[in-house]
Amino acid sequence: MSSHLDPEKIDRLAEVAVRTGVNLQKGQDLIITANMSALPLVQRIAVHAYKAGAGLVLPFFTDDAITLARYENADDASFDRAADWFYEGLGKAYKGGAARMAITGDDPMLLADQDAGKVARASKAVSIAGKPAMGPIVGFEVNWNIVAFPGAAWAARVFPDVPVQEAQSKLLDAIYDASRLDGADPVQNWADHTAELKTHVKWLNAQNFEALQYTGPGTDLRLGLAEGHIWKGGASPALNGVVCQPNIPTEEVFTCPHAYKVDGTVSATKPLAYQGTVIRDISVRFEAGKIVDATASAGEAVFRDLLGVDDGSSRIGEVALVPHSSPISQSGTLFYNTLFDENASCHIALGQSYADTVAGGSELGEDELKQKGANQSLIHVDWMIGSGDVDIDGITRTGDIVPVMRKGEWAF
Amino acid sequence: MSSHLDPEKIDRLAEVAVRTGVNLQKGQDLIITANMSALPLVQRIAVHAYKAGAGLVLPFFTDDAITLARYENADDASFDRAADWFYEGLGKAYKGGAARMAITGDDPMLLADQDAGKVARASKAVSIAGKPAMGPIVGFEVNWNIVAFPGAAWAARVFPDVPVQEAQSKLLDAIYDASRLDGADPVQNWADHTAELKTHVKWLNAQNFEALQYTGPGTDLRLGLAEGHIWKGGASPALNGVVCQPNIPTEEVFTCPHAYKVDGTVSATKPLAYQGTVIRDISVRFEAGKIVDATASAGEAVFRDLLGVDDGSSRIGEVALVPHSSPISQSGTLFYNTLFDENASCHIALGQSYADTVAGGSELGEDELKQKGANQSLIHVDWMIGSGDVDIDGITRTGDIVPVMRKGEWAF
Ligand SMILES: [Zn+2]
Ligand SMILES: [Zn+2]
Ligand SMILES: [Zn+2]
Ligand SMILES: [Zn+2]
Repeated sequence: MSSHLDPEKIDRLAEVAVRTGVNLQKGQDLIITANMSALPLVQRIAVHAYKAGAGLVLPFFTDDAITLARYENADDASFDRAADWFYEGLGKAYKGGAARMAITGDDPMLLADQDAGKVARASKAVSIAGKPAMGPIVGFEVNWNIVAFPGAAWAARVFPDVPVQEAQSKLLDAIYDASRLDGADPVQNWADHTAELKTHVKWLNAQNFEALQYTGPGTDLRLGLAEGHIWKGGASPALNGVVCQPNIPTEEVFTCPHAYKVDGTVSATKPLAYQGTVIRDISVRFEAGKIVDATASAGEAVFRDLLGVDDGSSRIGEVALVPHSSPISQSGTLFYNTLFDENASCHIALGQSYADTVAGGSELGEDELKQKGANQSLIHVDWMIGSGDVDIDGITRTGDIVPVMRKGEWAF
Repeated sequence: MSSHLDPEKIDRLAEVAVRTGVNLQKGQDLIITANMSALPLVQRIAVHAYKAGAGLVLPFFTDDAITLARYENADDASFDRAADWFYEGLGKAYKGGAARMAITGDDPMLLADQDAGKVARASKAVSIAGKPAMGPIVGFEVNWNIVAFPGAAWAARVFPDVPVQEAQSKLLDAIYDASRLDGADPVQNWADHTAELKTHVKWLNAQNFEALQYTGPGTDLRLGLAEGHIWKGGASPALNGVVCQPNIPTEEVFTCPHAYKVDGTVSATKPLAYQGTVIRDISVRFEAGKIVDATASAGEAVFRDLLGVDDGSSRIGEVALVPHSSPISQSGTLFYNTLFDENASCHIALGQSYADTVAGGSELGEDELKQKGANQSLIHVDWMIGSGDVDIDGITRTGDIVPVMRKGEWAF
C-alpha cells in the first residue's frame, strides 16, 4: 500500500528506532502502538527488533475508519469509556521489563468534524484509564521511543499542494533528514548529536538557575524552575539502566518548570494542532503558575477546554530550549505533529511533568513532587513559544542575569 | 485493498455477526481479534456494533509479515514466550462483561515453511498464557461469535486455479451462502435454522444415550458420552443471559464425549490443516479414551506432536453430528479452515471440552468435570470423521441400539 515510499529509508528508520531509539535489549519484549497506516514501518521494526533479540514484538493498531465509526454511531455513554484492563496490562508489561515504541503520524485532523465535547471526553477517559501505562513512561522506568511514519492523511496536511503520494514521499524525506538518518552511519550521527546536546545540558545544570526570563513580541514571562530541576537532552538511561533516545527526532534540552512560580505573558509562535483543531495565536497570562487569562484567534474554545481538564492542565510541566537554527526549524515546515514542531522551537508543555527532570523525582510521591514544583495532570501538551525574535535570560539564585538565548540562538 | 469484494456482502456479514452472532447488548464492549487482511470486515463490524450500542469496540490485529519476522529472526527463547498480561487483561474484560468476536480467514499455510518445533512451542506458550482469556469462552460465560473473512492467502489456497482476486470473490460467495446471508431477512434465516437444529438437539437429549457406535470404512468406534452430557446446537444463551450464535456458519449438534470411555478405530474422512501442515488420512485407535495408536499418510509427526501436548490432547472433548447433505458439505469445497470444514462433516475434537455441554458444568471444578468424563487440555482441534458411508447408532443405558445416522443422514 506504500510502494511509492522508498523501502530503504523506511528500513533505516526502523533500524535506528530499534537500535538507537529504544535500544532494545536481548530478551526484552517490545510493545508498539501505531496507526494502521504505519504498518510498513511496524513490519520493519519487527524485523529489526527480533534481530536485536526481542522476546516478543507486540503491535497494537488503531484504524481511522474504526475510530470514526465510534464518533458517527456510538451512544453518548461510549465517550466516557476506556479499556482500563488494557492500560493496566500495559503497565504490568512495562513493570515486567517490556520496552515501548510509539509510531506517530496519524491524521492530525481526523476528528476535526466531530463533536469537540465527545472528543474531549473520550480523551479524558483514556488519560484516566491510561495512568498505569503512562506512569512507567513519564517516570522513565523503561526504555522507550517515538518515531514517525508519513501516513497519507498527515502528509496531505503538511504538503497540501502536491498529490498525496508525492506528499508522502516528501514527508518521508523530511522525517529522514530530521531524524539524522543520512550518511554512512546514522548511529554515529546520533552519538555526535547527543554529545552536542549534552554540552548545553551540562552548562544549564551547572548554572542551576532560579528562573528563566523570556522577552519577545507579546512575551514577557518569568518562568521559575522546579527545586532540584535537572536539564536533560539526547540519549539518557532509563531507570532500568538502558540508554535510549525517547524522541527521534529531538533537538531540545528540557527541564521541569515550577508549576507555582510562573508569572507574566507569553505568546505562541506557531499554531498548535490539538485533537483535530488548529489553535492559532495563543496568548496567555500566568499568575503564580496558573494561566488566568487565555486568548486565541482560532480554536479558543478548545484551548479553554484543555486548560480546564484538571488543576494541573492550566499549569506547565515542561520547559524546553531549541535553537531557532535547528534543522527542523530551518525547514520552515509546519508538521501539525508535536514530535516535529516542538523540535523546531523553544516550547513549554501544559500539564504533566517528567519525574526524571527533578533530582530523585522517580522516588518521590505526588505530594513531594508538587512541593518541588513538579506539575501533575492528565494531559501533556507542548506548544511553541520560541522564534528568532525571542531572548531568554537565566536568573541566578543571587538575582544575576545570564544570557541563555539571543534572537533564538544559544548565547553561551 | 479489497475493492474487488462486494461491499454489500461484507456489510451484511458484519451486521449478522453483530446482531445474530454475538448479539451485542447495549453498553457492552466488543473485543475483536482479526488478521490485518480482515480489516474491511472489522471496519463494518465496528459500525454495526456501535449502532447496536457498543460501549467500546476494541480490535486487536495480527499481521502475517510481523508473525514471519519472528520465525525468521527471533532468538530461540522467543518461542516459549507469550504476552501473559494481555490474556489476563482479556479475561478481566470478559469477566467485566465484554463480548468477544473472532475473525477467521488467516493464511492456513503461513507457517508451512517454518520450524515445526518452534511453531508448536509458540502455540503451546499461547495456550498456557491464554487460559484466563479462553476460560470465559469455553465456559460460555459471555456471548461470543466467530465469522470468516476471505483473506487473499486463504482464498488462494481454497481456489488455487483462479486469479487471487477472483478466488477471494468466490470465497466470499461461499462464506455468504454457508452463512445463510441470502434473501430478504438473514436474521430470520438464522431463526429458522436454529429451530431445525433444535429438533435434533431435543431428540438426542431425550434419548440420553450411553454411547454412540460409528461404523464405516476404516471406522469401528464405540464413543462413550459424558455423564450428564447435554446436546447443543444453534443459538443458545451464554451464562450472562445473552442468546448468541457462537459460530457462523454452523451446522452441527454437539456434546461432551466421555474422555475415558472411547474404544476402537476411527479414520478421518477429510484432511486436517493444522498450523501450516496438511495432515492426511489420519487413523487412530482408542483404548479407554486414549489414542494409543495413530497414523497419517502426511503430517504424521505433526499429528503425533499434537497428541503429545498434554494428557488431554490424546483424548477427545467434543463429538459433533453434521448431516452429509449440509450445504457446506454439498459445496464439495475443502476450506482448510475449521469453521467451515467441521460444518461439512461429523467430527470429534481432540482436547478441551466445553463446560456447558455437561449439566451444571460451568459450576464444576476441573476434578468434578473429569469425574463426569469432560476432558481438559490446552488444545481443541476438530477433525472430520463423517461421510456418506458412515452409520451411527445410539446405545441406550439398557443396551438397545437406536439408529442416529444412516449413510451420513439423520435417521430419526
Ligand atoms: Zn519537549
Ligand atoms: Zn513535551
Ligand atoms: Zn464442533
Ligand atoms: Zn470444536
